Amino acid sequence: MKLKVKFLKLSAGRPVAILHKKFAEKSSIHVDDRIFIQKNNKKVAAVVDVASGLLKENEIVVSTEIIKTMNLKENDLVKINQASKPESLEIIHKKLAGKRLTSSDFRKIMDDIVSNELTESEIAYFISGVYEKGMTLKETAEMIKAIVSSGKKLDIKGEIADKHSSGGISGRTTPIIVSICACTGLIMPKTSSRAITTASGTADALEVICKVSFSIKEIKNILRKTNACLVWGGSLNLAPADDKIIQVERLLNLDPEPQLLASILAKKLAVNAKYVIIDIPYGKNAKLNKTQALRLKKKFLVLGKHFGIKLECSLNKTEEPLGNGIGPALEIRDVIKVLKRQDSCYKLEKRSLELAGKLLELTGKAKKNSGMKLAKEILDSLQAYKKFLSIIKAQKGNINHIPLAKYKKDIFSTRKGKISQVNIKEINNLARIAGCPLDKTAGLYLHKHVNDKITKGEKILTIYAESKTELKEALKYYEKTKPVIFK
Amino acid sequence: MKLKVKFLKLSAGRPVAILHKKFAEKSSIHVDDRIFIQKNNKKVAAVVDVASGLLKENEIVVSTEIIKTMNLKENDLVKINQASKPESLEIIHKKLAGKRLTSSDFRKIMDDIVSNELTESEIAYFISGVYEKGMTLKETAEMIKAIVSSGKKLDIKGEIADKHSSGGISGRTTPIIVSICACTGLIMPKTSSRAITTASGTADALEVICKVSFSIKEIKNILRKTNACLVWGGSLNLAPADDKIIQVERLLNLDPEPQLLASILAKKLAVNAKYVIIDIPYGKNAKLNKTQALRLKKKFLVLGKHFGIKLECSLNKTEEPLGNGIGPALEIRDVIKVLKRQDSCYKLEKRSLELAGKLLELTGKAKKNSGMKLAKEILDSLQAYKKFLSIIKAQKGNINHIPLAKYKKDIFSTRKGKISQVNIKEINNLARIAGCPLDKTAGLYLHKHVNDKITKGEKILTIYAESKTELKEALKYYEKTKPVIFK
Repeated sequence: MKLKVKFLKLSAGRPVAILHKKFAEKSSIHVDDRIFIQKNNKKVAAVVDVASGLLKENEIVVSTEIIKTMNLKENDLVKINQASKPESLEIIHKKLAGKRLTSSDFRKIMDDIVSNELTESEIAYFISGVYEKGMTLKETAEMIKAIVSSGKKLDIKGEIADKHSSGGISGRTTPIIVSICACTGLIMPKTSSRAITTASGTADALEVICKVSFSIKEIKNILRKTNACLVWGGSLNLAPADDKIIQVERLLNLDPEPQLLASILAKKLAVNAKYVIIDIPYGKNAKLNKTQALRLKKKFLVLGKHFGIKLECSLNKTEEPLGNGIGPALEIRDVIKVLKRQDSCYKLEKRSLELAGKLLELTGKAKKNSGMKLAKEILDSLQAYKKFLSIIKAQKGNINHIPLAKYKKDIFSTRKGKISQVNIKEINNLARIAGCPLDKTAGLYLHKHVNDKITKGEKILTIYAESKTELKEALKYYEKTKPVIFK
Repeated sequence: MKLKVKFLKLSAGRPVAILHKKFAEKSSIHVDDRIFIQKNNKKVAAVVDVASGLLKENEIVVSTEIIKTMNLKENDLVKINQASKPESLEIIHKKLAGKRLTSSDFRKIMDDIVSNELTESEIAYFISGVYEKGMTLKETAEMIKAIVSSGKKLDIKGEIADKHSSGGISGRTTPIIVSICACTGLIMPKTSSRAITTASGTADALEVICKVSFSIKEIKNILRKTNACLVWGGSLNLAPADDKIIQVERLLNLDPEPQLLASILAKKLAVNAKYVIIDIPYGKNAKLNKTQALRLKKKFLVLGKHFGIKLECSLNKTEEPLGNGIGPALEIRDVIKVLKRQDSCYKLEKRSLELAGKLLELTGKAKKNSGMKLAKEILDSLQAYKKFLSIIKAQKGNINHIPLAKYKKDIFSTRKGKISQVNIKEINNLARIAGCPLDKTAGLYLHKHVNDKITKGEKILTIYAESKTELKEALKYYEKTKPVIFK
């Protein structure tokens, strides 16, 4: 079966071939199938996409990757064949059948994920396998090794410390903890993610005031100047297999425990961390309940030991967002308020000091039970604020002006009462409907927290949005869900 | 976040938006994510694809489906937002968590599959859930109903009989059985699939000599003329949800039992079949072992009763391909030989007569234990052959010339012995390497079967291919795997 090559300047990051819908149907080839494209003695495998309009029935559009490899010209005739499946599919099959995977199995899968050999659907099968059948700690350790070795490493030396959260609760403790701990001489190469299901990730919030995408070489420069950084991990290729797995997990909000463990530890190993504090929020509104949180902690400790990392977990019952702001700009404003000792983001401050204190104790910078005190001193003396400013400057930013969205709407209480609960999930959805995380200036400001009293006519929250439509939709959603509950 | 619309005449069968790689990375949007595209008060959800080269960072390519719905013009500015997930994802989550699904759950999933609301990755999660957690027979029955009601029906009346195989073994009994049974007045609206993992499906083989894609109206016409048809099921939309599920199962060769049951029975219900015979091959080289085959039979019987179908299963230990030919043209040649009473495709003939005989007994056309005798009489009298010719003629074909591939290579035995085994899986792979199923004239001819004696210098098999490269590769694969084993 021969088809005529059509050029379209399509670069998809992997070999992709677009076939005409009718041709694909006749040939029983479907989206995500693999085909061999052959001309003379050159042959490459490509993943199929199907379209009509773009091309004729006897044509094939191939991505630039294929054009280069096969040295194709427009209108060349190529032969099409159904291709065999990559080896890692058999390994995925093995996991789905409940069998244990070996270190070379993980190596193969992670390499194939990084080189884009596996499609999203195939990775989905792998994640289901891990989700349904679980993994032993030995398997998890092997997977971590495979993830790390399929990516780059930040090869720096010294007292490298790091912090991570098992996730799900907004509240930007990270910039505060990093700024405090870096004042004591610890090296804090902090890489963060962008929002997955929340209104803002740490990287989204930082991006309001500075650059967050750097090369490894640039990061080393920033660390030399300030011994800390607050960057986005996604562009660094530190654990690219993990980034891709997270992307497919998101489709169904799946987050199997072995994958969570692997994801966090792989990133710590890739930056050469010697000391790690893990923040594990739990509770009714969090991702984990207490039993799950305790089990996760136990496994973190075993794996930390296995990899020679001094690691501690800090469980924390969390019932509402830690700060007042929800959304990138509003959250970074909270962080600056705490660092400048200006305003009372009490819960955000307290949790940041707890975690910073534990990390200072773990690294020997503070004696047992005196870490939080040291952290508070550093914060109160504005040393942490100065450190933060120097990190932001090194990342080519400043905090002179943090804009908020064009449109806003205050929501007032119609009666008096006491706040009993803030539904974190609905608050996140509300902020996303208002435009987060893509509109960095959009979001919410919570005027009241759990246990606060409220009188008739007082503000409950303010919604910020960049368009009237979004503001209207957010208001509608607020009325439907009433995420701030008071009695 | 606003982007400029770029036109590309891309019709993907569902709303697809292509974003620039850099923009997607910055916005943390990935392949297969959903976004909302908004202009004024119009808003549609689209599945994301990512590319570079095709478009600039501030541009978006949208498929024709979106252009129509939103009435877009080139260079219009549209607003982008991350979209909420479709409801069926929560149902898939439920299945992955091991919970039972209700009839409305299945209805929602099947409707979303048919309307292309779910991506391949999301369907993969659904299949894994069914594979890992299984389904009760009640759930399977509900799924069957949902599949049928999400597709079209062939609304014909009369003594409608049908045949199906649980699959995995090549050998085209179907055209022979249909031709025999249709001679007795039974209506046989047979829809077949194309090759999935084998070298040829029934539809691929038939397509060598006639058309196989027809509309429902055309099929009714063919049935009126000959009371049978041998068409491809894929274009009919009889059970489109099932077609799509099979497509995603193929990626990993998964075939969960509940899905197999649903797939077969949905298609029988959609053609209004009253009598059904199910061929269940089992054995070392087949998809199922004997225990699995017996369990499958039991479930088929329960479900058949539930839906008011007279249904019987015929288990058959199968150790090698039934015919001599492997590949579309070579297999249809075997069929014609049997129907013309020309040559000894003994096993193909025997199995066809067994299945036809059982169906004749099930429908009351023959008394108990005399079905096979009646089938043989119809075959020997050449009535079945004439019926076959009239079906092929009604499907706008003829059997005058069945070409074979340009290049061929005989493989000879280097010693004497007796054939002990034919590895069906390797034989399939070999035929596919030679170009099957896309090259209909390619394939293999087996000169020897299990238990046949062979002397030095006798032909074992002949390989047919449309190019020298493929012939060479097939030969290499033959040498590596030696799929015909003799002692």
